Amino acid sequence: MGREYRVGIVGATGAVGQTMLEIVERRQFPVKSLKLLASSRSVGRKFRFRGEEIAVQELSTENDVLDDLDLILSSAGGKISKWFAPVAAEKGCVVVDNTSAFRMVPDVPLVVPEVNPHALDHHKGIIANPNCSTIQMVHALKPIYDAVGIKRIVVSTYQAASGAGGRAIAELEEQARAWAAGRELPRSIFPKQILFNVIPQIGQSSPFQENGYTDEEMKMVNETRKILEDDSIRVSATTVRVPVFYGHSEAVNVETKKKITAAEAKALLQEFPGIIVVDDLEGQDRRYPVALDAAGVDETFVGRIREDISTENGLVLWIVADNIRKGAALNAVQIAEIMAKKNLIPGAGGKHPGNA
Amino acid sequence: MGREYRVGIVGATGAVGQTMLEIVERRQFPVKSLKLLASSRSVGRKFRFRGEEIAVQELSTENDVLDDLDLILSSAGGKISKWFAPVAAEKGCVVVDNTSAFRMVPDVPLVVPEVNPHALDHHKGIIANPNCSTIQMVHALKPIYDAVGIKRIVVSTYQAASGAGGRAIAELEEQARAWAAGRELPRSIFPKQILFNVIPQIGQSSPFQENGYTDEEMKMVNETRKILEDDSIRVSATTVRVPVFYGHSEAVNVETKKKITAAEAKALLQEFPGIIVVDDLEGQDRRYPVALDAAGVDETFVGRIREDISTENGLVLWIVADNIRKGAALNAVQIAEIMAKKNLIPGAGGKHPGNA
Repeated sequence: MGREYRVGIVGATGAVGQTMLEIVERRQFPVKSLKLLASSRSVGRKFRFRGEEIAVQELSTENDVLDDLDLILSSAGGKISKWFAPVAAEKGCVVVDNTSAFRMVPDVPLVVPEVNPHALDHHKGIIANPNCSTIQMVHALKPIYDAVGIKRIVVSTYQAASGAGGRAIAELEEQARAWAAGRELPRSIFPKQILFNVIPQIGQSSPFQENGYTDEEMKMVNETRKILEDDSIRVSATTVRVPVFYGHSEAVNVETKKKITAAEAKALLQEFPGIIVVDDLEGQDRRYPVALDAAGVDETFVGRIREDISTENGLVLWIVADNIRKGAALNAVQIAEIMAKKNLIPGAGGKHPGNA
Repeated sequence: MGREYRVGIVGATGAVGQTMLEIVERRQFPVKSLKLLASSRSVGRKFRFRGEEIAVQELSTENDVLDDLDLILSSAGGKISKWFAPVAAEKGCVVVDNTSAFRMVPDVPLVVPEVNPHALDHHKGIIANPNCSTIQMVHALKPIYDAVGIKRIVVSTYQAASGAGGRAIAELEEQARAWAAGRELPRSIFPKQILFNVIPQIGQSSPFQENGYTDEEMKMVNETRKILEDDSIRVSATTVRVPVFYGHSEAVNVETKKKITAAEAKALLQEFPGIIVVDDLEGQDRRYPVALDAAGVDETFVGRIREDISTENGLVLWIVADNIRKGAALNAVQIAEIMAKKNLIPGAGGKHPGNA
């Protein structure tokens, strides 16, 4: 029998944390023991894992809660990650972190397993899980990048409420119920009413940068370059929230370095791990992917594959994935799986390969 | 007192026809008499205009119902327009048609009043109202085109249910009520469930062309070129239905021929007729336009104005307008207003300027 790991899930009570728990069980990640960690508010709440009830413990760097962990999957806030992740990494634990805290730190691997798994090889304990909207896009663009190169990407997103967390899902739900009951619509999470509306702002308080782009939009620029390891790729994004519970959709125009036909792109995508092509314009049901069909599914879906008529070498794609799964929890678990397979998890008290 | 016109509204019972009726009254278009025309199913239904009840009459080319009309505002199907519009035009009536039937016919003016009103001067009786998603885009792009030229446009749309007509509005509403009541969601109009989903297909049965684009997407290509009178402009569109009742939103990346700063573009847009710039990233409420705020309003809204970081000379804009108003009914009435002002409506029995 292979090695088993002492695993912690940080932010275990959140939308992503709960899905991590489910995916770790379903994919049979080799877990020796499991700790669920969260803020003091959640202490004592219990969740089932492999038929057992596990009580949530408080995340702390003051006591020994981080001492005996080999691997942490983390999806709390960026501030929380900045606080505990370096402490855990120092203790020999590998932290796969779903926040933006470490993504652009040069020696922190930023990984989509189908795209750049080799980036894990010299890690120093912290691995960054990319932004949800970036993951599905680079996942689908990787085979095209490898075949013909990419000069420029213009992307507009249609992002689900769940990307803003459990309270955002509840707000969309409550707005729909209030609307049906003829009551005033409650609003506290989204900057505008999200029901029957679309909002060209992802991020809560002040997400706008000097150049007019939001933080979310600039994540798509910077993370795409880092993951594809090519700073020459130019990216412009408009990221938009839509009244959908699960599943981000993206309209992506790619300018390639060399010509590629739609048929060639389709063939490459059909071969690529984790990608499902839904692009049968004849059949009514399998014409293109939509968020509702992708919700709860692990794969990244691609459809509407066509040559961009507005540029010499280019493609247009419609990319859909469950933002909580491939966009977050699943990608983090896949990273852990590869690290286990490559023996890149030293274990508590051990030395990370990048520190050797 | 100025001249008054004998006006007909074809498709008077539809979502756009009803809004035409309201706008003709509110903007005090000089109406001498008004006929409401529709299919035989609607005959006898009554609607108020200036405090009077007007009964719907059956549209026909067999009797004299079209004989004494100077102007028809039409929004029935394309087939209906192809059938009656040439007959009405032959009788000296001006038909402002909201369908796609005549838009790309070379000697039919395709007009957005703020953009190319001169195209009306030599009309032959039929004027085409552009597609809703095209109207708001070219409206906002015109001042930028005039200032620095446009090489290429990449647009992704977020189109409201009302663009598919009254039954589509009802379907979204019924799906929301069924969802709240825990019932199965009814579906007959949209190709997939529209509630809590986004659908990358505009158009019902078989909207896909050989090149993979939909008819709606190709309308944005071809109509933009015709309205701006520049076939060198390259356009790529992805048109998407979202669960919104009224108001199309568009993420638009424009590559310009010469450099223009975001501040310069903003200043040009602020000056342009019919445009409202909502782009105050500091103020919480006036940061950017959204569909809900544009619904029921005449103007085209522009926000998120920024320089495109992925190209040397380019802008990114977020353009929002009520698709039933500026995108359809209002634009048609505005065309009629200009034609009245320029004395381009010969009157029943008269000769159209293009036939002189």
